[in-house]
Amino acid sequence: MSVSEQIVMAHGSGSTMMRELIDEYFLSVYGSAELAQGNDSACLKLATPTTELAFTTDSYVVTPLFFAGGDIGRLAVSGTVNDLATSGATPLYLSLAFIMEEGLPLSELRLICQSIAQTAAEAQVSIVTGDTKVVPRGKGDKVYINTAGIGVFLSQRPLSGANCQPGDKILLSGTLGDHGITIVSARENLNFSTNIVSDVAPLNHLVAKVLQAAPATRCFRDPTRGGLAATINELAAQSATSMTIEESLVPVNPAVQGAAEMLGYDIYQIANEGKMVAIVPAEQATAALAAMRTDEHGKNAAIIGEVSGPPASGLPAAWVRTPFGSTRVLDMLVGEQLPRIC
Amino acid sequence: MSVSEQIVMAHGSGSTMMRELIDEYFLSVYGSAELAQGNDSACLKLATPTTELAFTTDSYVVTPLFFAGGDIGRLAVSGTVNDLATSGATPLYLSLAFIMEEGLPLSELRLICQSIAQTAAEAQVSIVTGDTKVVPRGKGDKVYINTAGIGVFLSQRPLSGANCQPGDKILLSGTLGDHGITIVSARENLNFSTNIVSDVAPLNHLVAKVLQAAPATRCFRDPTRGGLAATINELAAQSATSMTIEESLVPVNPAVQGAAEMLGYDIYQIANEGKMVAIVPAEQATAALAAMRTDEHGKNAAIIGEVSGPPASGLPAAWVRTPFGSTRVLDMLVGEQLPRIC
Repeated sequence: MSVSEQIVMAHGSGSTMMRELIDEYFLSVYGSAELAQGNDSACLKLATPTTELAFTTDSYVVTPLFFAGGDIGRLAVSGTVNDLATSGATPLYLSLAFIMEEGLPLSELRLICQSIAQTAAEAQVSIVTGDTKVVPRGKGDKVYINTAGIGVFLSQRPLSGANCQPGDKILLSGTLGDHGITIVSARENLNFSTNIVSDVAPLNHLVAKVLQAAPATRCFRDPTRGGLAATINELAAQSATSMTIEESLVPVNPAVQGAAEMLGYDIYQIANEGKMVAIVPAEQATAALAAMRTDEHGKNAAIIGEVSGPPASGLPAAWVRTPFGSTRVLDMLVGEQLPRIC
Repeated sequence: MSVSEQIVMAHGSGSTMMRELIDEYFLSVYGSAELAQGNDSACLKLATPTTELAFTTDSYVVTPLFFAGGDIGRLAVSGTVNDLATSGATPLYLSLAFIMEEGLPLSELRLICQSIAQTAAEAQVSIVTGDTKVVPRGKGDKVYINTAGIGVFLSQRPLSGANCQPGDKILLSGTLGDHGITIVSARENLNFSTNIVSDVAPLNHLVAKVLQAAPATRCFRDPTRGGLAATINELAAQSATSMTIEESLVPVNPAVQGAAEMLGYDIYQIANEGKMVAIVPAEQATAALAAMRTDEHGKNAAIIGEVSGPPASGLPAAWVRTPFGSTRVLDMLVGEQLPRIC
């Protein structure tokens, strides 16, 4: 491969080569009017005067860059869109910053940028500002991406995990574990099954539908790193409640379940990238579920458990009831299960 | 060094170890109320209803992490604050995301976080949301930081490089080349001089003072990667003007000048991290200069050149007039001068 077909250090130097890379690979593929202006910061015009904003960031270091159902570009847009959506905000604007390793094939960068463009269009967000850095061989791993995002609250109060109350229902938008098992499968060439595919997707439209149908929804949370176990433990801690999941109600793809068991992974601790947990008052839970199921990313949604009062002193706050009727603690991951999942 | 004194993969896994790292190293050192809430996105309350926002991002991959006058933490806050300030916005909120390499000493992380806290306080910005990723040894270089920032326009229209007009004056807030020469000196153990120190600093207060004194200021730009040469070329291109710098008027620390000459660097192409270029109508240039000089980071400010009409067809748009009266092209960097300067 010739030097002209891969990233070299000069692509990150503020030189004319960086300018050309930005024009040909970024602006022409996912450029917005704001990005095209080329100022050091984008000036954003909001449609209505606003006093509340949602703001979030994530870096993406997934390996491999391309996997069944997605790639690092789709992940970088979806993950940040979903973090905004969980607060009840409408995602509007993203920043996107590359840290590229010298030697990254430009053909791979092109594919990633096309995926970014497609996912941003799907989520209806604009990429308005960016940054390009290059590090020498051996100081990175092809490409890392950071996105930050801004959302506005159109009609909805900000949501928070602290809002959960005893009696609320716990909804999950679909099957658990697909992303994590896809990544480990791609990385280790395990070839478990052809129908294991990452769920990575922007879920802001799903969240908007749920909020329309169930405006009293307490909060959303996407069960990414640490999986459902981390999400439920965090929400219980934030709201000083306890929460119980009914194992028999949790949707799981049997091929994913089999792979998780073979690998010794707890399905509740595996990362998801296109799933949403919603905590909804009981009287609106059916409406919320129906709304989730109308969305293409929520077809397999289910009510999987409920919120109770504070745990007894010294007892854990997150539990699973097994199909045999016994309950066990929904343990959070302590160390590392699967690095660089996102 | 024991494992407990350095970053391990589990610090990035969404596990309890990540939670403890966030609490002890990030929240307790530079935490804001929004960061402490622990939601997936921060909810920001603006003091007044707003329809225009400034938004920017940069990743920081500087090596070494610590250098005379600063470190990667001070750089990560200052760089993004300065990009917001250039648009005339008041920087308010930052996101801050770490990509750490397994093995990063926690003692170094602590110093970086303290520097972040100090620089954010100096700039009067809050760090409201963040992210933590860990990559294996050999897939990073100790730590990379991304910051994104949001600013608001209090009373000022957005500024743009496109606003420059013939007759405008070009102001520079201080000496050129200090950051770049400091970095190369630290990296290569050159020990040129004890008085070569990085200029890295947040310049939002300096910008606010200039805008107060010279409200017709056309634009600001901070001459980082690519140096003053890139800044002047970009501004001339954006505004379809030509620009000429008077070499005799450009402030340079003699020790930095000597080092640049020894290394064969063009002083105009060296990166700065605490300098601001302002383009100001001639009738307000003196007031703008006086305002710059009242700021601690603008003591050596000078008027260094002026804007003229569009360049003749086929001719370059950016020029330097030498002390001997001749003019030469202010060339932009084509390839790589000094990698990982910021």
